[in-house]
Amino acid sequence: MIEQLTVIGLGLIGSSVARAAKAYGLASRVVAYDISTEVQRRVNELGFVDLVTPSLSEAVRQADLTIICIPVGATAEVARELKVHLKPDSIVSDVGSVKSVVTDALIAELYPRVHVVPAHPVAGTEYSGPDAGFASLFQNRWCIVTPPEGTELDAIEVVKSFWTGCGANVETMTPKHHDLVLAITSHVPHLIAYNIVGTAADLEEVTQSEVIKFSAGGFRDFTRIAASDPTMWRDIFLHNKEAVLEMLGRFNEDLLALQRMIRWGDGQGLFELFTRTRAIRRSIIAQGQETAAPDFGRVQSEKGR
Amino acid sequence: MIEQLTVIGLGLIGSSVARAAKAYGLASRVVAYDISTEVQRRVNELGFVDLVTPSLSEAVRQADLTIICIPVGATAEVARELKVHLKPDSIVSDVGSVKSVVTDALIAELYPRVHVVPAHPVAGTEYSGPDAGFASLFQNRWCIVTPPEGTELDAIEVVKSFWTGCGANVETMTPKHHDLVLAITSHVPHLIAYNIVGTAADLEEVTQSEVIKFSAGGFRDFTRIAASDPTMWRDIFLHNKEAVLEMLGRFNEDLLALQRMIRWGDGQGLFELFTRTRAIRRSIIAQGQETAAPDFGRVQSEKGR
Repeated sequence: MIEQLTVIGLGLIGSSVARAAKAYGLASRVVAYDISTEVQRRVNELGFVDLVTPSLSEAVRQADLTIICIPVGATAEVARELKVHLKPDSIVSDVGSVKSVVTDALIAELYPRVHVVPAHPVAGTEYSGPDAGFASLFQNRWCIVTPPEGTELDAIEVVKSFWTGCGANVETMTPKHHDLVLAITSHVPHLIAYNIVGTAADLEEVTQSEVIKFSAGGFRDFTRIAASDPTMWRDIFLHNKEAVLEMLGRFNEDLLALQRMIRWGDGQGLFELFTRTRAIRRSIIAQGQETAAPDFGRVQSEKGR
Repeated sequence: MIEQLTVIGLGLIGSSVARAAKAYGLASRVVAYDISTEVQRRVNELGFVDLVTPSLSEAVRQADLTIICIPVGATAEVARELKVHLKPDSIVSDVGSVKSVVTDALIAELYPRVHVVPAHPVAGTEYSGPDAGFASLFQNRWCIVTPPEGTELDAIEVVKSFWTGCGANVETMTPKHHDLVLAITSHVPHLIAYNIVGTAADLEEVTQSEVIKFSAGGFRDFTRIAASDPTMWRDIFLHNKEAVLEMLGRFNEDLLALQRMIRWGDGQGLFELFTRTRAIRRSIIAQGQETAAPDFGRVQSEKGR
């Protein structure tokens, strides 16, 4: 049990972290800081933390665990501001979707005053802000912890236990490997979703109203992830450049091969790929990372109307 | 009210058409034909039609409306087999996702013996076969009707009324325009979903088990549409080649521009695109083509566990 948990940044993830800490009794006291006075006010209203403060130093002075939940591009700067206020030997973690750059920045700014144990809960929705969070967001999702070499095991254990307490499964890997894995499972999918929605918006032969009307043929699935927070995603691409470009290069090569199959009428090649991809879907459902309900369960709720 | 409706091909769509016709009283008699004896047996068991027959001629001889619900690559051949058995002046329609090639084939084979009124209900799930269908699949979805020039208005009206009776909204366009609209709203999205799932499966640095574990970061949304029927999708790409290659070319151009923004750290450019795409999502939800529930409603059902 953590004495004081401080959450910096109360968006979708930060507010879910704070809510989970209270809901599952993971900290005696949960303190919240957000740079926006609007968010401070709203978190106060929602009342899911013990204290909201507009002062970074007041927020972290007594924190045993501080979790930074802000766009990765702002992490280094906030760490720099935090530094002198942090309780020596306390633990600082984050939830960023990029880990190499962020881990380096946190270590450079904060080590050895505090223990640095970066983490990334692989969970979220397309909504943003303190109203969007909920305590069960991390249930049965994975949280990847990327402690730098030489981190004290006790500190790692505190962060791991926190996430286990939130209902997550915890896995440890190096920051570099994390960034490769997430480039293909999250960053490139988001990029191509943003891209196709942009392409569709710019067509002359097909109107935007037609794109919207007939989106149920597949397009609407892409718009969901292309509705995620723009600042967060801008920062992810700027800070995981190398891995994203590497995975994007492979994606493009494969797409060119597919394009060629279509041009030359290679039905067998198309059929083989389309069959192979079905198996991966089945594994994701079997491992509880997805619902098996048709159409993400949309049809069930529509049936019920 | 149609006297006899015959459905050729009892997969997800065909079996939903047959179920809807019975459920909403759109035809006095619904007859089913499928090339597979296994499917014939199963449809008999499920009991949602008046007659299942292994004979094409018996199936269509008295049909007032025949709807062909098979992969588009097989349409011309089936039309050829049907021809002599069709009741003169009856109506033949289909549900194919590609309309130019299919309309030409149906006209070439069947006109002027019967009226040809091709249609495409923009609805579906990632599941296949007669068990996957349900009567309400077309509720509040769009159905695009693409009658060739000179088609008798009465025949068009029968097909339109049928789809309205299924709960769909009906829109008319030319086959060529349909194929462009669907290339961007459905075919290219499916292609890139299949592609990224394939790319992920082939990586050496990231294992398939990692891809599956951490798929909640965005990847799993793509696997849903990449789990659709392989034969159906092979045929779509082979038969809507021109429009798919045209849209894919634009997608690729835009993706290269994005790739360049990442390489050169153009945060402003990324932010602008990511903001623009949010608006399209909102319109799709506002027009009832999508649920506003976070994460496609997956989080709600997970909360309930």
